[in-house]
Parts: sequence; structure tokens; C-alpha cells
Amino acid sequence: MRPSGRKPEEMRAVSFERDVSKHAEGACLVKFGDTHVLCLASLEERVPPWLRNAGRGWVTAEYGMLPRATGDRMRREASSGKQGGRTLEIQRLIGRSLRAVVNLEALGERQITVDCDVLQADGGTRTAAITGGWIALHDCLRWMEKRSMISYDKVMKDHVAAISCGIFAGQTVADLDYLEDSSADTDANFVMTGRGGIVEIQGTAEGEPFSEEQFNGLLASAKSAIGTLVEKQKQAIAE
Amino acid sequence: MRPSGRKPEEMRAVSFERDVSKHAEGACLVKFGDTHVLCLASLEERVPPWLRNAGRGWVTAEYGMLPRATGDRMRREASSGKQGGRTLEIQRLIGRSLRAVVNLEALGERQITVDCDVLQADGGTRTAAITGGWIALHDCLRWMEKRSMISYDKVMKDHVAAISCGIFAGQTVADLDYLEDSSADTDANFVMTGRGGIVEIQGTAEGEPFSEEQFNGLLASAKSAIGTLVEKQKQAIAE
Amino acid sequence: MRPSGRKPEEMRAVSFERDVSKHAEGACLVKFGDTHVLCLASLEERVPPWLRNAGRGWVTAEYGMLPRATGDRMRREASSGKQGGRTLEIQRLIGRSLRAVVNLEALGERQITVDCDVLQADGGTRTAAITGGWIALHDCLRWMEKRSMISYDKVMKDHVAAISCGIFAGQTVADLDYLEDSSADTDANFVMTGRGGIVEIQGTAEGEPFSEEQFNGLLASAKSAIGTLVEKQKQAIAE
Amino acid sequence: MRPSGRKPEEMRAVSFERDVSKHAEGACLVKFGDTHVLCLASLEERVPPWLRNAGRGWVTAEYGMLPRATGDRMRREASSGKQGGRTLEIQRLIGRSLRAVVNLEALGERQITVDCDVLQADGGTRTAAITGGWIALHDCLRWMEKRSMISYDKVMKDHVAAISCGIFAGQTVADLDYLEDSSADTDANFVMTGRGGIVEIQGTAEGEPFSEEQFNGLLASAKSAIGTLVEKQKQAIAE
Amino acid sequence: MRPSGRKPEEMRAVSFERDVSKHAEGACLVKFGDTHVLCLASLEERVPPWLRNAGRGWVTAEYGMLPRATGDRMRREASSGKQGGRTLEIQRLIGRSLRAVVNLEALGERQITVDCDVLQADGGTRTAAITGGWIALHDCLRWMEKRSMISYDKVMKDHVAAISCGIFAGQTVADLDYLEDSSADTDANFVMTGRGGIVEIQGTAEGEPFSEEQFNGLLASAKSAIGTLVEKQKQAIAE
Amino acid sequence: MRPSGRKPEEMRAVSFERDVSKHAEGACLVKFGDTHVLCLASLEERVPPWLRNAGRGWVTAEYGMLPRATGDRMRREASSGKQGGRTLEIQRLIGRSLRAVVNLEALGERQITVDCDVLQADGGTRTAAITGGWIALHDCLRWMEKRSMISYDKVMKDHVAAISCGIFAGQTVADLDYLEDSSADTDANFVMTGRGGIVEIQGTAEGEPFSEEQFNGLLASAKSAIGTLVEKQKQAIAE
Repeated sequence: MRPSGRKPEEMRAVSFERDVSKHAEGACLVKFGDTHVLCLASLEERVPPWLRNAGRGWVTAEYGMLPRATGDRMRREASSGKQGGRTLEIQRLIGRSLRAVVNLEALGERQITVDCDVLQADGGTRTAAITGGWIALHDCLRWMEKRSMISYDKVMKDHVAAISCGIFAGQTVADLDYLEDSSADTDANFVMTGRGGIVEIQGTAEGEPFSEEQFNGLLASAKSAIGTLVEKQKQAIAE
Repeated sequence: MRPSGRKPEEMRAVSFERDVSKHAEGACLVKFGDTHVLCLASLEERVPPWLRNAGRGWVTAEYGMLPRATGDRMRREASSGKQGGRTLEIQRLIGRSLRAVVNLEALGERQITVDCDVLQADGGTRTAAITGGWIALHDCLRWMEKRSMISYDKVMKDHVAAISCGIFAGQTVADLDYLEDSSADTDANFVMTGRGGIVEIQGTAEGEPFSEEQFNGLLASAKSAIGTLVEKQKQAIAE
Repeated sequence: MRPSGRKPEEMRAVSFERDVSKHAEGACLVKFGDTHVLCLASLEERVPPWLRNAGRGWVTAEYGMLPRATGDRMRREASSGKQGGRTLEIQRLIGRSLRAVVNLEALGERQITVDCDVLQADGGTRTAAITGGWIALHDCLRWMEKRSMISYDKVMKDHVAAISCGIFAGQTVADLDYLEDSSADTDANFVMTGRGGIVEIQGTAEGEPFSEEQFNGLLASAKSAIGTLVEKQKQAIAE
Repeated sequence: MRPSGRKPEEMRAVSFERDVSKHAEGACLVKFGDTHVLCLASLEERVPPWLRNAGRGWVTAEYGMLPRATGDRMRREASSGKQGGRTLEIQRLIGRSLRAVVNLEALGERQITVDCDVLQADGGTRTAAITGGWIALHDCLRWMEKRSMISYDKVMKDHVAAISCGIFAGQTVADLDYLEDSSADTDANFVMTGRGGIVEIQGTAEGEPFSEEQFNGLLASAKSAIGTLVEKQKQAIAE
Repeated sequence: MRPSGRKPEEMRAVSFERDVSKHAEGACLVKFGDTHVLCLASLEERVPPWLRNAGRGWVTAEYGMLPRATGDRMRREASSGKQGGRTLEIQRLIGRSLRAVVNLEALGERQITVDCDVLQADGGTRTAAITGGWIALHDCLRWMEKRSMISYDKVMKDHVAAISCGIFAGQTVADLDYLEDSSADTDANFVMTGRGGIVEIQGTAEGEPFSEEQFNGLLASAKSAIGTLVEKQKQAIAE
Repeated sequence: MRPSGRKPEEMRAVSFERDVSKHAEGACLVKFGDTHVLCLASLEERVPPWLRNAGRGWVTAEYGMLPRATGDRMRREASSGKQGGRTLEIQRLIGRSLRAVVNLEALGERQITVDCDVLQADGGTRTAAITGGWIALHDCLRWMEKRSMISYDKVMKDHVAAISCGIFAGQTVADLDYLEDSSADTDANFVMTGRGGIVEIQGTAEGEPFSEEQFNGLLASAKSAIGTLVEKQKQAIAE
């Protein structure tokens, strides 16, 4: 049995709270159980230097954790003077995932930065950030459409959402929390679009190597969970 | 008239939300109008190197702002590689203010770090952080008392709270929001205890120098506002 | 009694030595007793990026301490890779204080940087830096006037000087040296103009909170001391 | 057709040159075509601070690129003051991959660092680094065995090797070079053991999302290629 | 007797391997015995900011060491966040030495960076880097000449090469290896041109100060060795 | 003729001012004409980590320049976040030079740091720093002897002093000031002991390479100048 008491395929309670920022063009407080991530999209009328005059825009992400988002307080990255390897790896993943569903030419020469700050962590912060980041990006693009800056349908190509699946006590489980993640044999993150296309797969054997068969089980579980997440995204933006 | 439509002495709606963290020993989401600061107290069973074997503990604070807490997105300090002068100045002020009401000997050889992270900024973030930080510190000390680590009454000497007052359009006003702060002639931050003792005064003439008389007006206004804040703290911890 | 043997209101010997630099447009070696600060003003025909084409100039300050300016050698900030919070706080204060008496529009699109480097420290380095920095700024503006770049009287609006006052052994004392500062209950820095306007007040309770009455005593003492400092500035620039 | 003229499943010429260091305990210059990586294993009789007295050792990796390993010169990371996100991501991957086949308890309280420095880059540097890094690790463990520090067979559990596969012009191809990598639709890196267990999977859709079917094709191709690489490792260490 | 068994004036085996890079405009793997330095010249069509529109180009160098180039593994400079004083000192020396034989006006507004990365160190890395760096620079200029960008003979004024000489066990010896360097009383590096002009002399007494007479002995020894090195350069570029 | 109007061998006015610090164990304000360097020696009862329990002490130096020590204001190194290559090179040279005349075993397990801060620069700052640094070191050792910590004569082995010589307009000149240094063909720094032993030679051809004959002229000129400097040191410490 899972420490959380959930069934193997059972996800945690997922919620998206929109309109949580006075300032940002798009905003979403996403919760996957006790994992809470504030996703704020910022529009800027400029692109990174290496993209100047290229006729297209850019979507990027930054990721951070409050020092006491975790069980033990971690050192503040601003104070230690650099972002750690884990932080950089995650924010690159979020950025790639969001760009996978955006038509950068149709966006025009602008940059959208989605800041994903973990207010409370309990496993799966990167998958929550991608899934909630999409909502913030959606609201930012709707904000732009209202001001006749873009046509939403030309820029946003699809939904994107993410889930972690793992092998825990010999069984395939979905949406691992911190306790499960810490003792899972294998942990994999999947990013997929609303139409079921795969955007990213990152699977790691924490202990013993895993087999192709086991991996296929993880992928099947992820497909189902991401389908559910996309449904929830649709409900959230319909409100 | 004030841009906010408030009367000169009128503060913004102030609220303290406790129990907002699964992990921290003390926690408070404080709101001064649209200024929202998450204050999380972390207890560690060690002291800074320069205080080892000195027979007393330490209370310190760290301050941060989410990049899009503000109207324009600011660069993430973790990414720029250092904390700016404003950040360092504010976190030193919060730390001094909280230490002013703590008996460090009675705390024992432990450190409490109060992380104050601004989720949304609209002026007065440092005064909200001090006022809400006190609640987080209070809850941390109660947490310790429950575990028989300390006697709360020996460690916590008094309340501490803070407010900004300024001279806006020739008039003394309390609790400036961002718009008022930007065009005030003079801006002063006051930190006082529950018994009315002064812990910190920081007054700055933004435009013309101010007179002793004007300053006394600011101080009187601050006294009254801080009295109100302390009352609200008492209600919050009584719940 | 004060460790220095001085009477409560008695300041240390104050002197301003001008023309101490072969290169700088304005220069002053200021001494408040054993506190020695070299203030050098540098004129540059450019403004910070955020002020470009705004039709006005900028006055800023930088502060540093030689590693052995103090009783124990401190680590060189250039070697530790960053300026500490105290340094940043002080140089921001010096800059604000000097700008309070300068008409930035009349200065034109230029920047004056006043470097205040502490050669020897014995308490009150920031107040000495502001008071001596004003002399360096004055000489820089006279240098510019000689070259018909500005009209001095339009740019320089007033004198500015600073003093620290504190409560030591229950008594209000002026111009604390290091020994007094280390054991004072309350320490406050005041920055005022030649006409008595207040530019900055920074008061901190080191031990017990202080009362409004005590604070008014500090302010009165500061007023008197700053009056004396401004007189000394006038003598210095008349030579 | 592939730009390299290779058949879809055809790998580049792979070679392992051992004994290329006067100093290192294990060394291998690995070449995957024009991608050349120097892998040097260093043994130290200490472990990272967080592993002290835990009764086991550690294997870690560092990755670097000479500034002109690439077509355009890149800025030297030592000069820019930090390792980029890509570098950190890759060296974490190499470390995890090597640890997957090492019994850390049997290693004892020692650390082996495998430095993988890219002398020339033409795509696939991380897969070459893992595959050649294993040889360097092997030689380091043999060096230790000769000195009776460990029993090789208890420490080294299996081979580990890696390959990148991608979808290029609609076809599954193995071992992408830089030109192919730049225009592939999907790029995935696979790390597997000698017995066929999967250690890491990292798949990224560069353009369009990919399907489960396409991914299975990549995995099959990787399995075959890694089988070949393990054979070549066996020949190399038999010499 | 020398630890290396060489005669006092005997240099180590010196070799230059050209065409060792798929990408660089000029390349040379230089070996002075067990000291191996990879020198790669990169041409860029831009100059440093301070040289813009000055009508001339720039030649500069960067120096690095692989972490395990040495007997004990050293910390990677990219990871420690800065280049050490020794590194900066050496790369400044290499840059000055190469510029001494280049006509920067005839080069045009371009920059050539010669990266000298030590793959294996056994003393004399800086002298090997200068001597091999000249070959890389030569090949880069020939590459440019082929593309009619410059006239080689107008840009390259002479050869430049370098050697270390020292006083070991009371005797003048040439081309010290690490073991000799570690226990030499005096160590001096000499950089000279093909025509025998002196470009740089750096002599340091490690233990006892040395006399003028001893220094003249070192200089004579260096002259002879550099003559030999220049001959070897001529052979290398003739191939 | 020299821009300074001096004769070829003529040095600038040299002076040593002792007792210029309230805090440092040894102190000297050295002036070579308009080059002014404050040298402060600090004694610490600990050694660097790599020298622990080695039964000997350490002498080291740090070098800095006030931002406006020069004609144009330079960026403060503390603010730019690192010490430049020139700074590191110079402070390493000063440290080596002073250690050349100290018996580190006789010093005991202590460290003396000589901070050399340039208050005003006009060429020759490193040679002034070495020459004045010796005075500060001398006074520090005498301070220790008074407290029976060491025997001065066992620790201090000799004087050390330094001078720059160059070839200016075809002529050998001593003690170059900034103007001469900027346009000299060759610039060399010499460090020698009181008994005439050579500690360091650093010669650089700024334009054309120089000949052995020219170099010998520089060395002869340096010998004479350093003899004079040592005489002046003797007078200074006799006062």
C-alpha cells in the first residue's frame, strides 16, 4: 500500500486557482495535494538578445522554492549566490514543455516568462508547475487577445500537462508525493499534450535498473493521469 | 485626498492567516491590503558560528520578493547571483525588530529564522513582514513550549509591529500603498512594541527635508496605528 | 561618564583636509577624532542607464573600509566577492543624503560619484562620510563652475551634515566613538541640512526599546551638533 | 538520408583509448566519431560532508567543454563564473548513471570523481562521456584492487553505456551527430546496463510531440546500439 | 644530477601536432615531455568593446587546466566560480607574448583567442602554451590568408617561444619538469622572438635570493633553448 | 627628456611615514612621488588551513586601489564581485617578496597579512607597496618582540625593496611615473634584498622586444636605486 493510502492510479486532489495576482498578466495557484506552486506569467515587449529581429517570440520559465517550502529549511538560493543544478534543470524543463504548445511566430517579438515558485512542497513540484504554468500562460494569452495583440487560437496549439509515475513496492503508482518519491525504485516524469503527444520523458532508476515492460506500465499510467489533468484544465479555464 | 480614497489615518484592511504551512514551526500569511507576505518560522538546533557556546540563541530573518510580486517583473535575485542592497537592508531590519522582543538567553542555543517572502507587493512590505513575522515567531515559540523546550513567557517579552507613515500632499498619512509611497515627500517606518517602546525609526525625506514638527506628527500617527496592529495580533493569536 | 572622558554633548575634534587628491574633482579627508574617511568626488559625463535622456543628473556614493581600518582585521570585500549588507546600507544612505541638497536638473546629464573610504575607524564612519562627502561634492561643483559647466548656486541647495547620538549609561550623548557605540542602549543617526531640515533619521534600540521623550532628547542633541558641523564646513570651504 | 551518410541504425566509429594519463587512477579517451571526450577517474580517501561516517563511498562526475570544442567558440565557464544549466544537468546524469552499477558500500568510505572533458564536440557528448566514463571507472577499480583496497567484483555490478536516438526526417536513427541532432524532431538519450536494464531515459520533442509508437522505436534502436557498445567496452578492457 | 636524468642543458622531447581540431581555425597539441597542452585559435569578426573603431585587431589567450591534469585532482575553476590568480597571471602572459609578434593594425578589426588547455601537467605549462600557441596562431593566420582576409607576412612579425630555466642543486638547468621545479632554488621563465629579442622575463627566487651572475647563466641557457624551439617550430610548420 | 623632468637615474622623492594607524601592529604610508600606498600589517594567531601543524608561520599580502586613486575612476572591485587579474598578480608578488626575507619557522604558527592600499596612483604602485610593506612588516615584528613573542633578528633576515626601470625614448630610466610608464618601450620591476640578492625580476617588452644588453642596463640601474631605497628604509626605522 502507498504511504498516502491512495490506490495505485489515484492522483492527489488537484486544483487551479486563477486571478491570484494584482499584477501578472496570467496567474494560477496550482495544488497537487500539499504541493502548492504559484505560477505567474509576465509579458515583456522584448525578446532575448539571441532572438532579436528573428520575427518570433519566446516563452521561458523560472523556478524557485521558498526556503521553508520543504520539511527542513533549505538555504535561500539568492543568498547562496547561485541557482543549483536541480533548479536550473527544472526550469529548463518547464520552459521546453510550455514552448511545445506555443506558436512562437504567431506570438510576435515578445517574451512571456512564467515564474513558478513553490510555496509548499510535497513531491511533484515540477509536474504541478508545468500543469499550472499552462493555465497562467493561457490567461496571459487571453489578456493579450483582449488587447488585440494576438489571436489566441493561432498562438496556443494545445494543452500541456505533466505527471510523475513510479514503481513503488513493486507496483506502478501515479502522482508520487514526497514520502513515496523518497523510497520509489524508479521515478519518471511525463509531459504530454492534450491530444496525447509526448513532449518529454524523464525516467530514472533510483535503485535497480528497470525493464522495458515496467517502463511501459509507467507510460500507460501517465497517459491516463495526464488525460485527467487536461480535463481539469479545461474546467478551470471555462469558469 | 489619498489615491486610495482612504482618510489620512486610515489603515488598509489587515489580516493574519495562521496555519498556512505543512512544514514550518510557525507560519503567517499577512495582508496589508494588496501587500501579501508569507512569513515562515524555522527552528534549528544550532546557532551561527560566532555565537557558539555563548549560552544563548538567535533570531534572524530573510526577505525575498517573487519576481512578479511587483507591477513590472524584477530580475530573480537567485539568478542575478546576489541579494540587492534593499533586500539586505530590509532583512536586517526585520531581524533586529524581532530580536528586540525576544530573550535570547531563555531561548537556549537555537536559531529561529523567519523567512518573509512577498507574494504580492503594494507598498509597506517591510512593515507587513515585521508585523506578520511576529505571529510566525509566536507560533514557533508556542510549538516549542508544547514540546517543553522553552517557557513561552520567559522568551517572548512583548509584541512588536510596524507601520509606515508619510507626508503626502502636505498631510500626514498612515500605511502608504505603492502609489502613495511613490509620490510622498517623506516616508518613515516605525517599529514599536506592545507597550509603546520604540524599536526602530527610519525616516527619509524623498523630496524636501522635513521639520521636527512634521516628524512628530508622523510619530503620533504611527503610535496610534501600531496600537491597532497590536490589537489585531492579539485577536489573531487568540483564535 | 563617557569612556572617552567627553561631556555628554561634546563632539570629538573634527577636521576637513581639502586638496588631498591629484586626480579627483573634489576631495576631503575628514576626521571625527580617530575616525578618518577619505572622500573623493568623481565627475563623469554619463548617467546610469535608467536615467538616460531624462534631462537630469545623478549623485551617488560608494563606501568601503580598508581591511585593517578596525581593531581586528576584516576580510576584504573585493576578495570575499561581494559587499556586505552593512556596506550597501551605508552607501545608499550617503547617496540619499547628498542628493537631498542637490538640484539634479541643474546638474545636467552627468554623474558625480563620491567614494568614501574609511582609512581608520573609531565609530561614526557613516556620519563622518556624509559630512566630509559634502565638502568633496562642494569642491567638485566649484571645479565644474570654473569650467563653466554649471552655476554652483543653482545646483547646490544647502549644506548637509550628520551625527550619531545615543543613550549611554542613561544619558544622551553626541558623536559616539566605537567604545561608546558598542555599549550604548540606543543609537541614532541624524542627517540634516544647513537650514535645519531633517533629511534622514535612523534610530535603533540596541537593548531596551526607547521612549518618545528619549528620542526627542537625541534629536535635540543632534540638531545642536549638526549646527556646529555646518559651521565647520563653512570655515573649511572659506579657506 | 542522414547528413552523415550513415544507415538509420548505424553508429559512428567508436573507440576507447586507455592509459592516456600519467596521473589519473583510471583514464579513457573515448571517441564517437568526431566527438572526443577525455574521461579521468580520480580516487580520494574522503567522502562528501553529507556522507561522512555512513559506511559507504560515492561516485560522482564533472563535465566540461573546452571553449573551442564546438563550431563557434563558447565562453569559458571558469571565466563566466558559473557552470551553465546544461553542464550541471549533464554531469548529474553521468554521475547517476555510473552509480547505478556501483556497490557503494563495497567501495568503502572513498570518493571517485570521473571528470569528462569534451575536447571536440560533434553531438552525443553526454552518451560518449557515460560510455567512456565507465572504462575510466573500471580502470580505477582495477587500480584499487591491485593495491588490495577493494574486491573489484563486489564493487562493479555491471557495464553501463549510453546512446542517443532520434527521429530524423521521419525515421528512427541511432547515434546522432551534431548536424542530425540540430534538425531532429525528437531526441532521446538512453542509459542501460550490460544486462539490458534501463537506468535513464530522457526524451524531448524538439518540434512536434512524438507518439508512444515512435518512442518504442527509439527504445528498440537504443537497446541494440547499447548492446554493441557494451561489447566494445568488453574488448577494450580485455586488451 | 637532475631527477629526470637529463643533462643540465637538455630539454625534454618537444613535439607539435597540428590539425587536431575539426573546428578551430588554428590548432596545435604541444608536448614538452609529459606536459601536454592543446592550443586552439578562434577567429572572431569583432574586437573587445574598448577597441571598437580603433582600426586594429586583438590577440588574446585563455588558459585552463583539466582538474586531473595534475598529480592530485584540483577543483574545477568553473565550479569554484572564478579563475585563480595563477590562471589569470598565466593567460595574461601568453596573450602579451603572442601580441609581441603580431601587427595588430594589419590584422584588421578582428580578435583571435588562443585557448591553451593543459591536458596533462608536468611543469612548464606556460612555456609550452606560448610555444604551441604560436603554432596555432600561425595556422589561424594562414587560414585567413587563404581566404584573402590578410597578408600573412604583414601580420606575423616573427616567431615567439618560451622556456623555463632554473638553478637546481646549484646548477643551471633548462626546461624544468614538475619534480625539478618543486625543489629548484630559482625558477625563471623567458619569452623570446625568433630573432633573439626578449619579450618577457620572469625570475623568482623560491628560496635564497639569486645573484646577477646566476641570472646571466639562466638567460644564456634560455637563449640557447629558445633557439632550438624556434627551429622545431619552423620544421613543424614546414610539414 | 623624461616627462617628469628628472634625470635618467633620478628617483622621485621617497618617504616613509610610520605610526599612521591606531589599530595595526605595523603601519607605513609610503610615497614614491605622487604614488601613495598605505601599508598595514595585521598579526593573527592562526595560519592558513594548508599550513596547520606545520610548525611555521606565513606572511601574505593583499593589494587594492581606491576607485579614484587613478586619473579616471575605476570600478570598485568589491562591487564588481572579484579582484582582477592585475590585482591578484600584484598581491602575489608582494607576498613572495616579503616572504623572501622572513624566517617562517622562527615566526611560529602565526600569520602576518600586509594590506597595501593605494590611496593615490602615479605609476610604480607595486614597487612602493613592497618597499613600504617591508617597513610595516618590520614594525609588526618589533611589536611582537616587545611582547616576547619572537626574536626579531631570528625572523627578519634582510631588507627587501623594489623599483621599476624602463627604456624610455631609447634611454634607461629609473622609477617610472604613470606618464613615463604609459609610453615606455620596456618596463621591468626588480625586487632585491639589502645584501643585493635578486628576489624577483619581471621584464616586459611593451612594444619592440629588448636585447640582453638593454636588460643589463635596466638591472644595473635597479641595483643602484634599490641600494638607495634600502638606505632610506634604514633611516626610517632608526627614527
